[in-house]
Amino acid sequence: MGKKTLKASRIISRKKSSVRNIKLTLEYDGSSFYGFQRQPHFPTVQETLEQALSKLFNSRMKIKAASGRTDAGVHAENQIVNFYTRSLLAAEKIQRGLNHYLPASVVVKKTEAVPLSFHARYDVRSKVYEYRIWNSIHRSPLSANQTWHIPVALDLKAMRSAAGYFVGTHDFRSFCVKTSLTFKKGSGDICQRGTVRTVRSVEITKREEMIRIRVEANGFLHHMVRNIVGTLVEVGQGKIGPKDVRGILLAKDRTRAGRNAPACGLRLLNVSY
Amino acid sequence: MGKKTLKASRIISRKKSSVRNIKLTLEYDGSSFYGFQRQPHFPTVQETLEQALSKLFNSRMKIKAASGRTDAGVHAENQIVNFYTRSLLAAEKIQRGLNHYLPASVVVKKTEAVPLSFHARYDVRSKVYEYRIWNSIHRSPLSANQTWHIPVALDLKAMRSAAGYFVGTHDFRSFCVKTSLTFKKGSGDICQRGTVRTVRSVEITKREEMIRIRVEANGFLHHMVRNIVGTLVEVGQGKIGPKDVRGILLAKDRTRAGRNAPACGLRLLNVSY
Repeated sequence: MGKKTLKASRIISRKKSSVRNIKLTLEYDGSSFYGFQRQPHFPTVQETLEQALSKLFNSRMKIKAASGRTDAGVHAENQIVNFYTRSLLAAEKIQRGLNHYLPASVVVKKTEAVPLSFHARYDVRSKVYEYRIWNSIHRSPLSANQTWHIPVALDLKAMRSAAGYFVGTHDFRSFCVKTSLTFKKGSGDICQRGTVRTVRSVEITKREEMIRIRVEANGFLHHMVRNIVGTLVEVGQGKIGPKDVRGILLAKDRTRAGRNAPACGLRLLNVSY
Repeated sequence: MGKKTLKASRIISRKKSSVRNIKLTLEYDGSSFYGFQRQPHFPTVQETLEQALSKLFNSRMKIKAASGRTDAGVHAENQIVNFYTRSLLAAEKIQRGLNHYLPASVVVKKTEAVPLSFHARYDVRSKVYEYRIWNSIHRSPLSANQTWHIPVALDLKAMRSAAGYFVGTHDFRSFCVKTSLTFKKGSGDICQRGTVRTVRSVEITKREEMIRIRVEANGFLHHMVRNIVGTLVEVGQGKIGPKDVRGILLAKDRTRAGRNAPACGLRLLNVSY
C-alpha cells in the first residue's frame, strides 16, 4: 500500500470508528435566557451549552440540533439536543464535565450515545408542553417566574369543553404567530408542513391555586401553545364560548383567537422519538 | 370647658376612636432578601414593607412585630406582621395600595383589622415550617432557589423513625445555633423560655423527586428547623442511627447534631394564634 492510500484509509477508518452522536436531555430555567437559539449580544441556552461543550472538549463545538427552539422566558424540563464528537469520553463523564461548566440555570439530566442517524429535530414524534397558571386573587412571589397570574375565577368545565376542539388534525394558522421571513427561514416548519398539526391531547388539571394545561402534539407552530392557552383562558372568563373554538380554527386568522399567554408559564415537558 | 381641656379631650377621643391594629399575611421569595429583619445596607423584607407602608400612608411607618424573623434566603408563604395606624383606609384598600408599592418578590395576601391587643410575635400559638429537598442525581435549575439538592438516596423509613424523637417537649439546645449576645438581645426567646420547645409533628412526604419535611412547634430556636433537617438527612444517609437522635437531644450540644441545612429549602408555611 502506498503512503497516500494508507493515509486515506486511516482517515476513513478513523471517521468510521470515532464519530459519535451524543443525545443530551436538558433542564433549564428560561428566565435566565433570551430563548434557546443562539443570537448575538444576548445569553441563550444554545450559546451557554456550546460554550460548556467547547471547554469540555477543548475545541470549538456546536450542537447539531435541538428538538425545537423555546422562546425567551420559556422553561424546559426535558429539552433534547444532539451533537457529534470524535472524543471517546464516556457518556457519564461528558455529563459530569458539562454540568461542571454549565451555570445553575441549566443542567444535563441524561447523556446517551445514539445512532449517527438520530436528529433531535427531524426525528421528533411528539412533544408535550405544560402551561402553568396561578389562579388566585393575589400574585405569588414564590411562583412568579413559572406561572401566569390570573386573579379572576376561571370556568374549568368550559375550558375543558373548549380543549376538546383542539384535539385532532387541524390547520392551526389561527394559533400561530404571524409568519415572518426569519421564521420561514429558521424553522422550515411552515414551508414543509404548512400550518397543519395533530394535537393528541389537551389536559387541564387544578391543584390548589395551580392550573396546569398539558398539550401533546406531533409538532407545534410558533406561539401555538401560548395562543391555545390564551384562548382557553378567555373561554374560562366567558369571553369566548367553548364551541366558538371550532370557528376560530376554521377561520385560519390569528386575530380571531385569544391573546398570547406570557412565556414564563410555559415549559417543554417531554419529547418523544 | 376651657381651651386646654377641650384640646386634651379631642386627643383622647381621637386616640380612642382612630388607632387601628392591622394584621398582614405576607408571601415572599427569600432569595431576594437578606432576611426579614431590618439591617443597614442590605435589602430586607421588613425594610421593603415599611417603605411601602410609608408611601401608602405618606408618613414614616414601622411595623409593630412579625411572627418571627426569617433568615436570609428563607421564604414565607404566610408570614404574619402587625402595625398600628390612625388611617381609616379600608383593609382592602390598604392591601391593594401595599401590593402596588411592593416589588414582585413580596405580596400581601390578607389584611385584617384586629383588636389592639394583638401582637404578631407574642401571641403565636404554633408555627409550621416546610423544608424542601430535591432528591435526584442531577440538580434542578427550575427548583434550585427553593430546594436543597441531595444527589444520593435517602432512607425515608429511617428518617421518619428519627423524626418521631423530635415530637414532644424537649430542650432543643443541640439544634440551636450558638447563642450570641445579638441573638439574646433581639429575640428574647432564649432569656424567657430557655431552649425548651414543644414540637407537635414532623411529617416527611415524597412526591417524585421532591421530599417535604413539615415541622410544627409552639416556637422555634434560631436555625432549629434547618438543624433538624440536616440531622434527618444524615439519618437518611445512614451516618446517624434513628435512635441516636434521642442521645443528641439529651446531649444539649450543637456539635452532636447534623449540619445546618441551606436556607433556600426552608419556608414559613403557617402561623396560628
